[in-house]
Amino acid sequence: MDPGLDPAAYSYVHELRVRFAETDAMGVVHHAAYLPYLEEARVAYLRAKGRPYGEIRAGGTDIAVVEVHVRYRVALRFDDVVQVHVRLGAPSASTFQIAYLLDVDGVAAATAVTVHACVDATTGRPRRLDGWLAELARDGG
Amino acid sequence: MDPGLDPAAYSYVHELRVRFAETDAMGVVHHAAYLPYLEEARVAYLRAKGRPYGEIRAGGTDIAVVEVHVRYRVALRFDDVVQVHVRLGAPSASTFQIAYLLDVDGVAAATAVTVHACVDATTGRPRRLDGWLAELARDGG
Amino acid sequence: MDPGLDPAAYSYVHELRVRFAETDAMGVVHHAAYLPYLEEARVAYLRAKGRPYGEIRAGGTDIAVVEVHVRYRVALRFDDVVQVHVRLGAPSASTFQIAYLLDVDGVAAATAVTVHACVDATTGRPRRLDGWLAELARDGG
Amino acid sequence: MDPGLDPAAYSYVHELRVRFAETDAMGVVHHAAYLPYLEEARVAYLRAKGRPYGEIRAGGTDIAVVEVHVRYRVALRFDDVVQVHVRLGAPSASTFQIAYLLDVDGVAAATAVTVHACVDATTGRPRRLDGWLAELARDGG
Repeated sequence: MDPGLDPAAYSYVHELRVRFAETDAMGVVHHAAYLPYLEEARVAYLRAKGRPYGEIRAGGTDIAVVEVHVRYRVALRFDDVVQVHVRLGAPSASTFQIAYLLDVDGVAAATAVTVHACVDATTGRPRRLDGWLAELARDGG
Repeated sequence: MDPGLDPAAYSYVHELRVRFAETDAMGVVHHAAYLPYLEEARVAYLRAKGRPYGEIRAGGTDIAVVEVHVRYRVALRFDDVVQVHVRLGAPSASTFQIAYLLDVDGVAAATAVTVHACVDATTGRPRRLDGWLAELARDGG
Repeated sequence: MDPGLDPAAYSYVHELRVRFAETDAMGVVHHAAYLPYLEEARVAYLRAKGRPYGEIRAGGTDIAVVEVHVRYRVALRFDDVVQVHVRLGAPSASTFQIAYLLDVDGVAAATAVTVHACVDATTGRPRRLDGWLAELARDGG
Repeated sequence: MDPGLDPAAYSYVHELRVRFAETDAMGVVHHAAYLPYLEEARVAYLRAKGRPYGEIRAGGTDIAVVEVHVRYRVALRFDDVVQVHVRLGAPSASTFQIAYLLDVDGVAAATAVTVHACVDATTGRPRRLDGWLAELARDGG
């Protein structure tokens, strides 16, 4: 899955503001801080689509992260207001992908893809993808 | 409980090294990063005293943090090797305190006190302190 | 400075939502994650008062944290929407304090006080408090 | 660059222990916490090779992260002692790669690749790779 640089190719956008705690001694946002940004945007996306993550978990499913890929383009800085564009990809039998574009004032700061699997919330064992994921992807992600 | 600046007043010392991820745009360690340092030292202290935290949790007890107090004196920096001195205070009926002194090359960087309670690991409800805590404190913390 | 439990005693409120990344294996928000919440609220407060922290730093002043005190009352959980109430205390010659009340749906989750000093943004050396801090405190914080 | 599962294919190993602060409400290490593990191992690797990162920065070079790729295989847990195996790949004109294998008691927990560029520590602008990086890669990484 290739996350593109065109915001129009994404189906949802979540806005957040960079915390000072997320910067590092290079004066920019530390690269590890982007992963919680992706997660926050993913959770907001699911909520907007009628699938609050708390309800998914209460239903016995955890969504595990099995891969992350991030490409950093232009450093984010303290107090930046970041648009995180989100798009759900077509799921396979056992995993699904989400693509992200982070921009600030229309300038692409980073792109990312996360790959996920559904696991049993109690045992942590893999399970089939919840059916609504395929439906959501079919409806344009 | 007054954490003092004399390392000799502490019963245990744990060493750690500052990660780059823990710095911020002021070029020093972010103040929030000290709390995981205290926790890491607390866990190492319990392990050294024959009470690995994993076993405490497996026994049905979680140790909750109910208060933290930190005084920052000299900023920590990337790659600093930090000595975290630890001392257990005399427990009350339901809580116990731990004092900390962080130093780098003998220079006091910060002092801290954390206050803890025992809670049921399943329900999260408060419970009486485990008996070994009072024993440990009596034995000099 | 005693942070009280009455929201009416605070001059500003900032809202945030708990990230999954901020939880820990006890199923609640890790105690260290509260410090960035306080910081985010403090930065929002300064912005609302016409003092964006980026401008303060560009003006040559960094606001260092010299003490933090947090009392945890009721655990925060994933996806909680948290109101962080903020109040600036009367500054001394060289430091100022900010009090915080965190609540969720009107239930007090935590209170905190942070103590700050102004330092030179280049050298990190202490400097006199910027004059606007005393004015802001006089105007009701 | 394909990080393999054979520890013998790596030139350096760094050991660390999982902090409680790094776990999340699924009871395992949060996926974002792996990035500071990679960084800590990278810094330890450079130190072992006679290139402490503090000296690299003092020499005017920052090593920026331009891409990260992580594949999570078996969840890490609180108090796990993790071996982070590290290998430097052959650099291109302007970037270099590092591969990682994380294991616990010989079980592969995750693999990762990070891609880096050298930037001017003052301006943040890209610069040619420092010569010692190519030498280090030639010497077997």
